[in-house]
Amino acid sequence: MIQAKMEEMGKLAKEAAHSLMLASTEEKNRALIAMARGLIEAREEILQANEADVKQGRDKGMSSSLLDRLMLSPQRIREMAEGLEAVAALPDPIGEAIEMSRRPNGLEIGKIRVPLGVVGIIYESRPNVTADAAGLCLKTGNAIILRGGSEAFNSNRAIARALSAAASAAGVHSGAIQLVDTTDREAVNILMKMNRYVDVLIPRGGAGLIQTVVQQAAVPVIQTGVGNCHIFVDADADLGMALDIAVNAKCQRPSVCNAMETILVHEQIATDFLPLLTGVMQELQVELRGCEKSLEIVPGLKAAQDADWETEYLDLILAVKVVKSLDDAVEHIARYGTGHSEAIITNSYASSRRFLAAIDAAAVFVNASTRFTDGFQFGMGAEIGISTQKLHARGPMGLKELTSTKFIIYGNGHIRP
Amino acid sequence: MIQAKMEEMGKLAKEAAHSLMLASTEEKNRALIAMARGLIEAREEILQANEADVKQGRDKGMSSSLLDRLMLSPQRIREMAEGLEAVAALPDPIGEAIEMSRRPNGLEIGKIRVPLGVVGIIYESRPNVTADAAGLCLKTGNAIILRGGSEAFNSNRAIARALSAAASAAGVHSGAIQLVDTTDREAVNILMKMNRYVDVLIPRGGAGLIQTVVQQAAVPVIQTGVGNCHIFVDADADLGMALDIAVNAKCQRPSVCNAMETILVHEQIATDFLPLLTGVMQELQVELRGCEKSLEIVPGLKAAQDADWETEYLDLILAVKVVKSLDDAVEHIARYGTGHSEAIITNSYASSRRFLAAIDAAAVFVNASTRFTDGFQFGMGAEIGISTQKLHARGPMGLKELTSTKFIIYGNGHIRP
Repeated sequence: MIQAKMEEMGKLAKEAAHSLMLASTEEKNRALIAMARGLIEAREEILQANEADVKQGRDKGMSSSLLDRLMLSPQRIREMAEGLEAVAALPDPIGEAIEMSRRPNGLEIGKIRVPLGVVGIIYESRPNVTADAAGLCLKTGNAIILRGGSEAFNSNRAIARALSAAASAAGVHSGAIQLVDTTDREAVNILMKMNRYVDVLIPRGGAGLIQTVVQQAAVPVIQTGVGNCHIFVDADADLGMALDIAVNAKCQRPSVCNAMETILVHEQIATDFLPLLTGVMQELQVELRGCEKSLEIVPGLKAAQDADWETEYLDLILAVKVVKSLDDAVEHIARYGTGHSEAIITNSYASSRRFLAAIDAAAVFVNASTRFTDGFQFGMGAEIGISTQKLHARGPMGLKELTSTKFIIYGNGHIRP
Repeated sequence: MIQAKMEEMGKLAKEAAHSLMLASTEEKNRALIAMARGLIEAREEILQANEADVKQGRDKGMSSSLLDRLMLSPQRIREMAEGLEAVAALPDPIGEAIEMSRRPNGLEIGKIRVPLGVVGIIYESRPNVTADAAGLCLKTGNAIILRGGSEAFNSNRAIARALSAAASAAGVHSGAIQLVDTTDREAVNILMKMNRYVDVLIPRGGAGLIQTVVQQAAVPVIQTGVGNCHIFVDADADLGMALDIAVNAKCQRPSVCNAMETILVHEQIATDFLPLLTGVMQELQVELRGCEKSLEIVPGLKAAQDADWETEYLDLILAVKVVKSLDDAVEHIARYGTGHSEAIITNSYASSRRFLAAIDAAAVFVNASTRFTDGFQFGMGAEIGISTQKLHARGPMGLKELTSTKFIIYGNGHIRP
């Protein structure tokens, strides 16, 4: 029953993808504007549906921070609509010729940017992802199958319905935006195996969700998000700068994947830097968990356990480790990092070069906060997620990362000798 | 036991990848030249090992075409060595800055080409893949784990041993080139799940192998190879050109993935073209299997069954179908094609544009043979396989497709507001 329904969705999405592949930029932008208007017009229904989700969340004892992520307001709906308009205003990557050259035999060979086809998104809590992801996929000519979390089921359904109705009225194929209309886990299992219909799956959410998808999907997956990010304060660092950046990377928004989780401090400056760091962080209510050496320098610090080095706190907690050298820092990051964002604070040219070369991560910073790893901050104008894998896309993904390419070849009767 | 051994290989490969990431182009090229010499020096051992495989194949009743693919000679070993030298001579893609720009806040953000890390290759029969794949991975700074077919086990082992010894002697980490040293299937099952150590898996072989890997791997996979390729002869085609290209695409090398398997003929020219096609193809020993309409035009043709439209013959067999229009051809290809290579023969500008836009495949040709889909023919200087998926790489994959990117960001104390 669910199997048949999911197959039906897949087939419809594939049809929609074929139609979207041929849609002009004008047609897609018109649909995006219509979708923005559709959200505003459906505001009352969306807010009502959201109220039901929030009530259910409260009854189940959901934390206030999760409730805050779930809750919609007229303002938040307006922001979603503005997001769709902003995507309409971005340049369309589809159709761009990436390479085009003539071979010695006269064949002209080019690579053209095309949609991926059908994109599946599996996500948790925030209902605004429904509108953001649908907008980015429509702009890039991809059909989308959305599977939101059960905690936002009613909200997501109301939003998806408004978007899909508006897009259809603007001439877009009815399979272009579809939401999996059940909270049954079986639907996810089926979706992950639907490689006949789905070209890529993007899981957005906690580590558990992402690992399940990576382990079980037959559909190609883009892994997103988990960030155990480090800042290494080199012997040659400007300590004031290091302090400012550390505070920003830890405190400006602790709950996100590009926040710093461990600070690595060169032993040569540890006795100067650690007391400064401790003072400021304690003032900001950050709990520090230190290695043995740091406890010698700042007595009374809570001791870090082995598990601390691999924990993504997403909270006002910071692990602190004194290292003997830049290479020790690199080794620690290679062992515990998740390949997301890593930074060095230094005035040494040699240290900066070595760190940039030796760290294997999506984003490697010199003298800047890890919090900058973000599609908007990187100038992409949009973000569908942050990839921590190496295939296809690495780091923040914008519109281009939602595309594939195809070779087109102009001949004149060419045959292979 | 196998589990532990595979884990050990994975760990060693990961270490090697970290070391290779920092290797200079000179160091890598020196190792490639040493590997070429190593193959020549180990010629006798390799030929002896290969003899054992060939004898076993013969005893098991292997077909002569498979035996031919398996069999090595001094000449073939020399060709493998020359292949490695040719890879040494190619430009190194690693370190290339792909984009670099300054943001309004002064942050300088660039994208740099880096190795993928650890590449796993699962392949069948031809032992030369061992040398080719190892060379391409070394050039791009990737560690490689090779898993060849059991039919070439001794040959692959001798080749890998020669390559690995030569690379180590030239200063490359001993984990850079490793062959799975057992024919036990369990090793493949483990390799597919080793996403802690392996960054990408490339299966090269038959449809069965590829589907198994796609279904079961937790490691990201690049799907290669299966090609159910079509040529559409439009109403406006030059029939002589169409005939030449059809013969080339079917007969020049029928056993490969870019050979044509079905020809689609516009009904307006079918009565002129089909008798010509039948005459030439029958002379070339090609068995034709026609749709009902084509049987009306050429009586005595063998009738095609439904299964013919989805079969990759890899043999001197050709399915023939008369279609009413270009759109019918596009629809047939969308339904039965594998997204590999598709061609139109036409003198109509409109038809060429429509076909190029509407066909969703790795390579779309106008007036040229599908046989050109090949890394060397496309000017890449090398080929590790032909991707038929849309993620990361699509179509022939050369050195660039064995790389990832990382963002590097130069700041000056930047914090996120």
